Amino acid sequence: MPRVVVFYEPGSADVLKVEERPIPELRANEVLLSVEAIGLNRAELAFRLGKYLEVPNKYPSGLGFEAVGIIQQIGSEVTYFRKGQRVATLPIFSMHEYGSYGELVVMPEYSLTLCPEYLPAVDAASIWMAALTAYGGLIYTGGLTSGEYVIISAASSGVGAIAMQMARSVNAKVIATTRNPLKKMYLMDSGAYDVLVTTEEDMLARVAEITSGAGADVMFDAVGGSMVSKLVQAASFGGRIVLYGTLSTELTVFPLLLALQKCVVVHAYRNLSMVRFPEQRKKAEKFILDRLEEGVINPSVDRVFPLTSVVEAHRYMESNQQCGKIVLVP
Amino acid sequence: MPRVVVFYEPGSADVLKVEERPIPELRANEVLLSVEAIGLNRAELAFRLGKYLEVPNKYPSGLGFEAVGIIQQIGSEVTYFRKGQRVATLPIFSMHEYGSYGELVVMPEYSLTLCPEYLPAVDAASIWMAALTAYGGLIYTGGLTSGEYVIISAASSGVGAIAMQMARSVNAKVIATTRNPLKKMYLMDSGAYDVLVTTEEDMLARVAEITSGAGADVMFDAVGGSMVSKLVQAASFGGRIVLYGTLSTELTVFPLLLALQKCVVVHAYRNLSMVRFPEQRKKAEKFILDRLEEGVINPSVDRVFPLTSVVEAHRYMESNQQCGKIVLVP
Repeated sequence: MPRVVVFYEPGSADVLKVEERPIPELRANEVLLSVEAIGLNRAELAFRLGKYLEVPNKYPSGLGFEAVGIIQQIGSEVTYFRKGQRVATLPIFSMHEYGSYGELVVMPEYSLTLCPEYLPAVDAASIWMAALTAYGGLIYTGGLTSGEYVIISAASSGVGAIAMQMARSVNAKVIATTRNPLKKMYLMDSGAYDVLVTTEEDMLARVAEITSGAGADVMFDAVGGSMVSKLVQAASFGGRIVLYGTLSTELTVFPLLLALQKCVVVHAYRNLSMVRFPEQRKKAEKFILDRLEEGVINPSVDRVFPLTSVVEAHRYMESNQQCGKIVLVP
Repeated sequence: MPRVVVFYEPGSADVLKVEERPIPELRANEVLLSVEAIGLNRAELAFRLGKYLEVPNKYPSGLGFEAVGIIQQIGSEVTYFRKGQRVATLPIFSMHEYGSYGELVVMPEYSLTLCPEYLPAVDAASIWMAALTAYGGLIYTGGLTSGEYVIISAASSGVGAIAMQMARSVNAKVIATTRNPLKKMYLMDSGAYDVLVTTEEDMLARVAEITSGAGADVMFDAVGGSMVSKLVQAASFGGRIVLYGTLSTELTVFPLLLALQKCVVVHAYRNLSMVRFPEQRKKAEKFILDRLEEGVINPSVDRVFPLTSVVEAHRYMESNQQCGKIVLVP
């Protein structure tokens, strides 16, 4: 029987168990994938802790948004995809229903995208959450364009790495933030226009200096909490703030008067708000695949663990040492 | 010498003084208006208190955004407007530089719009702040369209009254909120689809009931503070929240996780964010003048005071009894 990762209660990484489970019956719109690689996301840490946008509604629960694999079986109403194709999953389903952490996993057809043959599995599994979020947040929602300044917080994350590449691909200037001074060099090497170490530097003074007082045009934030006030302060007139994460556990205070002075816009962004429009989803996939092929955006894999070391992999992600993506292979 | 309202320190309504002042020299881009009527706004209460988006940078300070009057003189570079024309001011200047509370006032040419002859001065002076804010907030920024539900908070204000009319003119359904149960009838008579008395009713339960669980598509809020969390809770998926005021003195907490679940967008709206685009300003003026002429939007004047009773007029506005606009006449 194939191995799959499940958990029986919310909690620390130890709650994750690798178990053998029978292959489930496919529903009409589903496919069965033999998994080559699995991309890890903070969303799964939060889901495991019962602190994600959705909380497990049954136990044992599976988890995981990203997998690359070969289609082994298709449901009766699967129309576009065929057995034998190599696909990646887009993180646009509910973890109540599906999870990518396993050797053989069931996925809904609507979540699939063809995986280019030239991409190794480990790389392909590290692209879609990050690239969809970066494209949807920066380009589709934030409207980032040439010459603009963009603040990318938590820039050493998987999303941050791709977001920096994507911002550069439209000729925007990236101000990358990190809490960890040891990551400064990595971020400069990754193409940041400048790097702010938020635990050591005065963010506002530095953004003012970098932007010659104009402020940042777009802000792409994984943090929330007190970061939001700082971003409003760092914003240009009409600045666009795209919030996509909740790394901070602080209360998020919104500085209303300052926001009105600057006429800022705040978008709470999830990929769902883009991919629900089929035309827009197609556009996003094409943008990302084109730039992958051109080498303008590149997978950034920090470390690969075997599926059986999922507990260690989650702990490593929680330790916040990584620069880029963590990947599991069955 | 013409009389003008000034104040020498921030404070309660008593700080306002009616004084005779010499007519100032016109600069190249300015006009001199003999004022027929002055529309009052909460912006001026806040400015008088030193709590507006801008605070007085010199004393004595004038104040006031809206006036209707006849052009008496023009500066050397005034090109579009002529002596003798009847104009209204759009509230798109800084009160550091200009104020409308007076018998003869100087205004920059860029703030002027021609005033239709059929509109009595008292009505004309009560239109532009409200109508620009309502158009800019609801239509230009909020994208309100036919069939949508829109929550309009503090709906009995001058902006609220016009916003309700404008929302109805695009066939949206208005959920009006007020703190004062005595205003419920007025708001229903003004065309609200439903009225929520926020001091008496559970806003979320009522919005859910009114919208059959879907939530409100657009929210147009003058309040801030705890209202913002309520609006995020009351929002539909992808709901657009337009904040344009700070009536509440509470801290504005932003419920980030809930906002992400719903993918809401929050716009901090001021007219400046629209009128800085000349094409968009023209479009806004035309939209408003067309609907005034059609009688689809109507001035809603609550009470008229003489200019010399400016202290009483400000106190009346602060008492929050009014339904519609308060106007001064010299």
